[in-house]
Amino acid sequence: MVFITRRERFNAAHRLFRTDFSDEKNAAVFGKCSNPNWHGHNYELFVTVKGEINPETGFLINLKLLGSLIRETIIEQIDHKNINLEVPFMAGKFASTEVLSVAIWDELYAPIQQLGAELHCVKLFESENNFVEYYG
Amino acid sequence: MVFITRRERFNAAHRLFRTDFSDEKNAAVFGKCSNPNWHGHNYELFVTVKGEINPETGFLINLKLLGSLIRETIIEQIDHKNINLEVPFMAGKFASTEVLSVAIWDELYAPIQQLGAELHCVKLFESENNFVEYYG
Amino acid sequence: MVFITRRERFNAAHRLFRTDFSDEKNAAVFGKCSNPNWHGHNYELFVTVKGEINPETGFLINLKLLGSLIRETIIEQIDHKNINLEVPFMAGKFASTEVLSVAIWDELYAPIQQLGAELHCVKLFESENNFVEYYG
Amino acid sequence: MVFITRRERFNAAHRLFRTDFSDEKNAAVFGKCSNPNWHGHNYELFVTVKGEINPETGFLINLKLLGSLIRETIIEQIDHKNINLEVPFMAGKFASTEVLSVAIWDELYAPIQQLGAELHCVKLFESENNFVEYYG
Amino acid sequence: MVFITRRERFNAAHRLFRTDFSDEKNAAVFGKCSNPNWHGHNYELFVTVKGEINPETGFLINLKLLGSLIRETIIEQIDHKNINLEVPFMAGKFASTEVLSVAIWDELYAPIQQLGAELHCVKLFESENNFVEYYG
Amino acid sequence: MVFITRRERFNAAHRLFRTDFSDEKNAAVFGKCSNPNWHGHNYELFVTVKGEINPETGFLINLKLLGSLIRETIIEQIDHKNINLEVPFMAGKFASTEVLSVAIWDELYAPIQQLGAELHCVKLFESENNFVEYYG
Repeated sequence: MVFITRRERFNAAHRLFRTDFSDEKNAAVFGKCSNPNWHGHNYELFVTVKGEINPETGFLINLKLLGSLIRETIIEQIDHKNINLEVPFMAGKFASTEVLSVAIWDELYAPIQQLGAELHCVKLFESENNFVEYYG
Repeated sequence: MVFITRRERFNAAHRLFRTDFSDEKNAAVFGKCSNPNWHGHNYELFVTVKGEINPETGFLINLKLLGSLIRETIIEQIDHKNINLEVPFMAGKFASTEVLSVAIWDELYAPIQQLGAELHCVKLFESENNFVEYYG
Repeated sequence: MVFITRRERFNAAHRLFRTDFSDEKNAAVFGKCSNPNWHGHNYELFVTVKGEINPETGFLINLKLLGSLIRETIIEQIDHKNINLEVPFMAGKFASTEVLSVAIWDELYAPIQQLGAELHCVKLFESENNFVEYYG
Repeated sequence: MVFITRRERFNAAHRLFRTDFSDEKNAAVFGKCSNPNWHGHNYELFVTVKGEINPETGFLINLKLLGSLIRETIIEQIDHKNINLEVPFMAGKFASTEVLSVAIWDELYAPIQQLGAELHCVKLFESENNFVEYYG
Repeated sequence: MVFITRRERFNAAHRLFRTDFSDEKNAAVFGKCSNPNWHGHNYELFVTVKGEINPETGFLINLKLLGSLIRETIIEQIDHKNINLEVPFMAGKFASTEVLSVAIWDELYAPIQQLGAELHCVKLFESENNFVEYYG
Repeated sequence: MVFITRRERFNAAHRLFRTDFSDEKNAAVFGKCSNPNWHGHNYELFVTVKGEINPETGFLINLKLLGSLIRETIIEQIDHKNINLEVPFMAGKFASTEVLSVAIWDELYAPIQQLGAELHCVKLFESENNFVEYYG
């Protein structure tokens, strides 16, 4: 079994807050990440899949297809968007990196299976200092 | 003469648009960067100053002071903020990387002179693929 | 379960040697890393914790608290210090990256538990070409 | 048990194709990676070994020896070479990153055991966007 | 005046050699870079243009147009190609990074002028350790 | 005229201080960089030379020779050393990045001229956040 990883990137705005909290309480719990006027990030997304090498092609998976799948399923929904307001697969969810990683996993799991591989890990960098990994 | 550079970083939301354009016209001119719900970036700011080495200290400038100056003058105004709505030195200006670089230069020039050095360059990365340099 | 990682950095001097070896024998075993006058590195430390996402906050852990904990417990003890001579949690130990990684784990394990998460991995880069991982 | 990783790099030409396919069919299956006139990459190779810390040295393994072993066994065979035509351990194999990672594992496993450690992972970057991991 | 830079990347094979030299003489002059079976690189290309900020748009130049221009003029000609054999603008030239940088400048200068900006610098990385800059 | 740059790296210990200051005064002026027990860095050195492309070779300069020259003249003197105590070309000088950059320029200028090129810039990173450039 081998593991292969594809990196894609997106830029987005978000805000960490609860609608049932006042701005003051949100600021106390979430700090400057709760700014009502939003802030944003250059996110780096690493998607790792696993499986056997196909003896016909020497590939685990066609990386062009994997890249296209990630771009259609994730990047086109979220790039240059507001994560709290505009991203279908984040509707009604917290816009934290943890929750976003799980949501990306849920979007990618079945389509990657249809490509003949198995999703192994979603790794999402919010900045050079912070990243989340989710393995299902 | 030597040149010394200090890197600082900030995250912010912005939107490229003109208030005298419709959303449609803004989209035509500025593309997905004009999204009315904002998007954002991890900006990397490199501030380069120049001058002679101080024979008393072996320094051109105390980098701790330069870092503090950049953080107080720029980072605290813009980090986790909306560049279009909340950053005093960007009020009434386009939120493009070009205009932002010039505005940062204007904020830093005089205070750096008071530290005994001369501002040489503001270099601002919007992403790993795009950056602006301004030399006054 | 999700995994979240925080990067912090420190600069330090060190030397690889045994006090019961002569300088010659230390040089034979440890090479230029045994230089009696020390050398140093910019270390990069990645601390990974694991746990469930808190449904109240959308966080596994408050990253600001995790960052503060790492800085207080590790960085303030070791940054701009001599690892062999001045770092309390390395007293009497080899100053290798392997031993240092284990010592950092031992310092962080209990305080991270008090933050409600579990330490998963300490990853320590000594240079762009060499790093150690310790999982307890 | 600790894990230690050494990075080495090489540049090489390759082509993805099957000799029993026409150039047209190769282009259909492998895209521009099947260019008959070759293309190439700066590969980054991360070799991770695992074991106990040697109480005599504070090391898991002497990284100089590990680096030398990787350079002699792998880098000197493949650097500035054509992977399809000239690399002994790739003779008769597909020149994909997946197959190359497995072949590097096979070359390194026994010699690393002779250094007193156990090979844990071969991680091979073909570009900043694509990499493969193999754990045996 | 501001300067704005766009990064694009390509992978290619090449060989350093003179047709009027034997393989032996080529090896003596050009070392392993003269391997008759080619080798290759992941090249990183940074194109810097200069000009005034357009007061209508806040841009020096539309970076999407600049990116498209670089991809059409340069990347599509050279990506996954053999620089010695297949790249029209390198026909009959040495495939060194120096010569390639000048050739890229010559391809880009006029079309960038038609976008309303002036080419300032072509910076080309052959590896993380080596790069060339050309300013015309 | 083209510019070509070679990166080399070294690790070293240093201390910022004046022998005519007490430890207290050194701490007041130089902060934690004056720690009497030293600290250290992974330095990255970028040496840029300029000149015409040699029509015989397509090179400005043989990069292998430039790399060897930098390693013999600079890296072997300073790598895994104490900059204050052991580096001949820093004897009696402040161990600041500014002074070190000028000293490296002075060591390299004449030998690079003998290789047929002209030294253009010494750029020295002390950390990912701080670097110095010197142009003579």
